[in-house]
Amino acid sequence: MRIALYPGSFDPVTLGHLNIIRRASRIFDRLCVCVMVNSGKQPMFTLEERADMIRRTVSRLENVVVETSEDMLVKYAKDIGADIIIKGLRAMSDFDWEFQMALARKIIEPEIETLFMASSSKYTYLSSSVVKEMAKYGADLRDFVPREIMGDILARMGK
Amino acid sequence: MRIALYPGSFDPVTLGHLNIIRRASRIFDRLCVCVMVNSGKQPMFTLEERADMIRRTVSRLENVVVETSEDMLVKYAKDIGADIIIKGLRAMSDFDWEFQMALARKIIEPEIETLFMASSSKYTYLSSSVVKEMAKYGADLRDFVPREIMGDILARMGK
Amino acid sequence: MRIALYPGSFDPVTLGHLNIIRRASRIFDRLCVCVMVNSGKQPMFTLEERADMIRRTVSRLENVVVETSEDMLVKYAKDIGADIIIKGLRAMSDFDWEFQMALARKIIEPEIETLFMASSSKYTYLSSSVVKEMAKYGADLRDFVPREIMGDILARMGK
Amino acid sequence: MRIALYPGSFDPVTLGHLNIIRRASRIFDRLCVCVMVNSGKQPMFTLEERADMIRRTVSRLENVVVETSEDMLVKYAKDIGADIIIKGLRAMSDFDWEFQMALARKIIEPEIETLFMASSSKYTYLSSSVVKEMAKYGADLRDFVPREIMGDILARMGK
Amino acid sequence: MRIALYPGSFDPVTLGHLNIIRRASRIFDRLCVCVMVNSGKQPMFTLEERADMIRRTVSRLENVVVETSEDMLVKYAKDIGADIIIKGLRAMSDFDWEFQMALARKIIEPEIETLFMASSSKYTYLSSSVVKEMAKYGADLRDFVPREIMGDILARMGK
Amino acid sequence: MRIALYPGSFDPVTLGHLNIIRRASRIFDRLCVCVMVNSGKQPMFTLEERADMIRRTVSRLENVVVETSEDMLVKYAKDIGADIIIKGLRAMSDFDWEFQMALARKIIEPEIETLFMASSSKYTYLSSSVVKEMAKYGADLRDFVPREIMGDILARMGK
Repeated sequence: MRIALYPGSFDPVTLGHLNIIRRASRIFDRLCVCVMVNSGKQPMFTLEERADMIRRTVSRLENVVVETSEDMLVKYAKDIGADIIIKGLRAMSDFDWEFQMALARKIIEPEIETLFMASSSKYTYLSSSVVKEMAKYGADLRDFVPREIMGDILARMGK
Repeated sequence: MRIALYPGSFDPVTLGHLNIIRRASRIFDRLCVCVMVNSGKQPMFTLEERADMIRRTVSRLENVVVETSEDMLVKYAKDIGADIIIKGLRAMSDFDWEFQMALARKIIEPEIETLFMASSSKYTYLSSSVVKEMAKYGADLRDFVPREIMGDILARMGK
Repeated sequence: MRIALYPGSFDPVTLGHLNIIRRASRIFDRLCVCVMVNSGKQPMFTLEERADMIRRTVSRLENVVVETSEDMLVKYAKDIGADIIIKGLRAMSDFDWEFQMALARKIIEPEIETLFMASSSKYTYLSSSVVKEMAKYGADLRDFVPREIMGDILARMGK
Repeated sequence: MRIALYPGSFDPVTLGHLNIIRRASRIFDRLCVCVMVNSGKQPMFTLEERADMIRRTVSRLENVVVETSEDMLVKYAKDIGADIIIKGLRAMSDFDWEFQMALARKIIEPEIETLFMASSSKYTYLSSSVVKEMAKYGADLRDFVPREIMGDILARMGK
Repeated sequence: MRIALYPGSFDPVTLGHLNIIRRASRIFDRLCVCVMVNSGKQPMFTLEERADMIRRTVSRLENVVVETSEDMLVKYAKDIGADIIIKGLRAMSDFDWEFQMALARKIIEPEIETLFMASSSKYTYLSSSVVKEMAKYGADLRDFVPREIMGDILARMGK
Repeated sequence: MRIALYPGSFDPVTLGHLNIIRRASRIFDRLCVCVMVNSGKQPMFTLEERADMIRRTVSRLENVVVETSEDMLVKYAKDIGADIIIKGLRAMSDFDWEFQMALARKIIEPEIETLFMASSSKYTYLSSSVVKEMAKYGADLRDFVPREIMGDILARMGK
């Protein structure tokens, strides 16, 4: 059985992430979406809140599980028996950093492969940062995040 | 009448910004330079100080007004009747983020277009961050910022 | 009256080009789409054929004219009284070359400005080269080129 | 059974390609390496010669087959029942074009996914073009191409 | 005598930095490695600790000295009589910012040249940030930092 | 004595090349400018014509010699005792290919180092291709090429 891991900070999950989850879940026997700490940024939602928001969004995808971890990515992958890490690429600036991290992981854990998927062109503009920027000003988020979590974001913005 | 909006944090305004303002003011009937909040950074000058510095610099350009706003960019554009947003591009790294934001704005407000202008090659190296870095060490800022605001920067650096 | 020039080789015109034409025609009083020689490539259609294909596509846009020219871009712009050149940017690799050319034109003819527009995210993947590659293998071109010119491409491919 | 397709012009196959083949063959049940026409370049070896050179190189990888095709990539993938296309990425300039093509394929054949793998950092400098450039001057190719095909290249160079 | 300056924050020094130091020390009569403040980040080690770690690492390179400075780069270079600044480039994202800074320095101090060296392909993935990320999770740092400083990092991580 | 080699196709030499030659000649004891074959393009001038044009341009720089070679770059460098190769970088697209070639040379001849210099911001827009494009249309070349060779280009264009 081929298990793939899709890690991210998902703060919050966007329609772009959801597009990657759907496509990756069709390729591998099991897909584990793992909400991880992004040490560089003050999060909007806790790890558990973010995992819960994704779970509501992907409830119909039977081979997808959603977890949280504060562990190192390759270590967590080994623990759950995943030998594939999935990353979505939207644009050039993603590419450079993700490429470096993929090469560094390869040194630490040569058995684990990173596979990149191109984000759908409909979502090249879309990131969690863009969502937060838009939410701050009360913009309509319908084209940005899954319907199931819009209430969570509005509540958090205090609007 | 065609109104264009040139937004930025302008902390402080540089000769590169001024070059864009001059060129854009010749293309459109009216150009509104709008000083906006850059949530990611601790500013050197307040919104009003920055607007005031630009006003002294562009006083001879008759169709240019300088304002401040803490509102969302597309909302502010609509309020003042601007359907064009002007952005200067200096280098690749600008391009990627500005491109994403332009596409996101297009979703929220399809009537507003973003037009990019290439910074003059003389100013490709120049940004507000570079100016602040240089000012910190007491470097001569003559080639970096308009003459009219050099005193403000020196005063703020306490030098 | 503000006249803008949208130059390109348009071999053939794509839905991405058409998207730029529509948006630019709303910003300027008059838009001249000019089919130009691309010295680096063996063309599929002649200059006149290409102009004719665009004309059929934009016939409903009243302030748009379509011309051909073998002249230098800035010279042609001056001749027709255009002081704006419009370029669409799809991706990083476009940016670098277009940026250089914009700076070079600025040296030769400082009065003419180049303005860049981001291609709609729906068309970031789309170029005349991609269309030709697809046409070669008989792929369905419906999502790539205007309906009005599909017959021309099929006829040229001898299919 | 999950079949993946690794297409390329492989003119000639390099140690970088071989690294991707080895890693991809461990992820999927079956990997089809397909030598395809690169319309833009005059090839050094025929399609069949190139396929034969790869076959000698991968003979020990049991789930790898090597074929040639002059068909369209997505069509060929469907014919052999592959729903995954594998692409190696070495550098930024690869990324931009490959990204566009992946998005275009997605329009034509939404069921087929493209997955990108980062080339090993040892081979970021390596491409068939570099090999040909080096071979032209009689450089030692040991660090560039598989041992099994060095004779073929030397013979072709007439040395 | 030709003196070159290799500035950086070196927090901590990596095998990639060491590779640049070795190669640059063979080109110039004297190489000054200068540990400088990186205002954007909270450091892991003090300036002096970082300099001391580099000194232990390069003790066998006779024409290399290691200093610290809180001064402006070009000013420090002038003070020590260096007219060359050495910078390592790993990837695109380095390039853009370093390029801007090199052009800005050229305005302030035209006599000082910046020369860029490509990081060895073995170290394209490697940066001080990657090292800190890996250290946080207790990964083996053998392929990342010089042997002589591994103890310092482990001690600082409290492990 | 430190000898550096500045290779290129120089078809024709531009003010940007000349800027690099001047700056590099101040850093190294001797600079050899070497005109080399660019296999990908049909040249405008022969190797000897190009070398002659550069010689007229740099006649006042005493430690600069101009040669031609059809040999492999690293081989030629070794033959003339140069252990430094100088390359000018103007923009991102240069960087990617030059970086790959520098890494490949390092494999073949580890003793030879490639050093990159940033083109002056005044010349970021400038390349031999831009010059030829401009010359084709009879544009004034004063800001693009050295005064000494303008006649050669006009003569070749038959104007």
